[in-house]
Amino acid sequence: MDAKLKECLTHCLSCYQVCIEAVRHCLEQGGRHAEAEHVVTLLDCAEICRTSADLMLRSSAVHAHTCRACAEICQRCAESCSALGDDAEMMRCADECRRCAESCREMASHA
Amino acid sequence: MDAKLKECLTHCLSCYQVCIEAVRHCLEQGGRHAEAEHVVTLLDCAEICRTSADLMLRSSAVHAHTCRACAEICQRCAESCSALGDDAEMMRCADECRRCAESCREMASHA
Amino acid sequence: MDAKLKECLTHCLSCYQVCIEAVRHCLEQGGRHAEAEHVVTLLDCAEICRTSADLMLRSSAVHAHTCRACAEICQRCAESCSALGDDAEMMRCADECRRCAESCREMASHA
Amino acid sequence: MDAKLKECLTHCLSCYQVCIEAVRHCLEQGGRHAEAEHVVTLLDCAEICRTSADLMLRSSAVHAHTCRACAEICQRCAESCSALGDDAEMMRCADECRRCAESCREMASHA
Repeated sequence: MDAKLKECLTHCLSCYQVCIEAVRHCLEQGGRHAEAEHVVTLLDCAEICRTSADLMLRSSAVHAHTCRACAEICQRCAESCSALGDDAEMMRCADECRRCAESCREMASHA
Repeated sequence: MDAKLKECLTHCLSCYQVCIEAVRHCLEQGGRHAEAEHVVTLLDCAEICRTSADLMLRSSAVHAHTCRACAEICQRCAESCSALGDDAEMMRCADECRRCAESCREMASHA
Repeated sequence: MDAKLKECLTHCLSCYQVCIEAVRHCLEQGGRHAEAEHVVTLLDCAEICRTSADLMLRSSAVHAHTCRACAEICQRCAESCSALGDDAEMMRCADECRRCAESCREMASHA
Repeated sequence: MDAKLKECLTHCLSCYQVCIEAVRHCLEQGGRHAEAEHVVTLLDCAEICRTSADLMLRSSAVHAHTCRACAEICQRCAESCSALGDDAEMMRCADECRRCAESCREMASHA
């Protein structure tokens, strides 16, 4: 497996994990953290990261399409987390989402 | 839930099911049916259909991105199935993939 | 595909959908509906229903194991929804979970 | 997160990855590697490992049920891989499945 692909796969699996952990954190915090749009965005991000990773693990010929969707959704999730940014776990999630978005954007553009 | 969204969701869930059933069929047939690129394409299509449906079930604001990826991958899967088209199950899978691709393309363009 | 298996598959896919829709509903309601344990239970139930269906679609030899887990988690989810039972969507979700639990329990015991 | 849970989560995510990579490997090898029962078992194992990890990431109260199913399916997958054991990738997959089965069995028994 090519080094860039491997790196992107690592970002997607890591971002998936951080987003799922963030779902519980946000539900426990309540208030703005638990607003429907934010929690739904975290769930969407986790789901597309997992799918994007899945295709890369199979060295799929069409992974650019899932990487492109993943980049957009991670970017949106980073913004949603940053808006709650006085919270270490949300800042960590925003950072992870931004790294994953950047890596997926690069994969999508090279395909 | 809006009628067009509901219709697209139904196509995605149906296409997911047909693709997973087709994986077993192709493995049992062997030969060209079981070639890596074809089976991987069926698995990719099942995975993105499931994810695309998942976001629509949550009335996600970002479902256009997964619908766009889904349209591309379903289209590719329809072609891969059609190339084996002297087989009723592959023709059924190709039809389902084409319907899902068309519905997802429409969702992506209206978002 | 055997009729009992097909019926169980239909219950799992239906329960998956109802649980994901219920996640958004509960987040929008807030209060007790949005408590972490309840939303996490809905997410868990959706996830195992989807996985249980996935194995049945492949006519997997080991689907009894996922059906057994699915029966337990659906049962727990039905109870969590029933505790909020003055709400039509929660009652619908509880009913769906109970039907799926019963069907999965039967599949698990016959394997 | 408790250390044992974290360890089990790591095993599940690792086993998921190895199984998906093994699917492509087996399809490319053809012959006994690509027999339907073996490839279906790899897909089942990947799917339940991913689900088992998903519940642990949410610190789910019901993860013992998915860990129990995961232990059984990983064990079966290890046996299926070992039967093709003159192949480095299958041996690696069998080892990973056995480690994951053991870790999941322990999680299930302590719950």
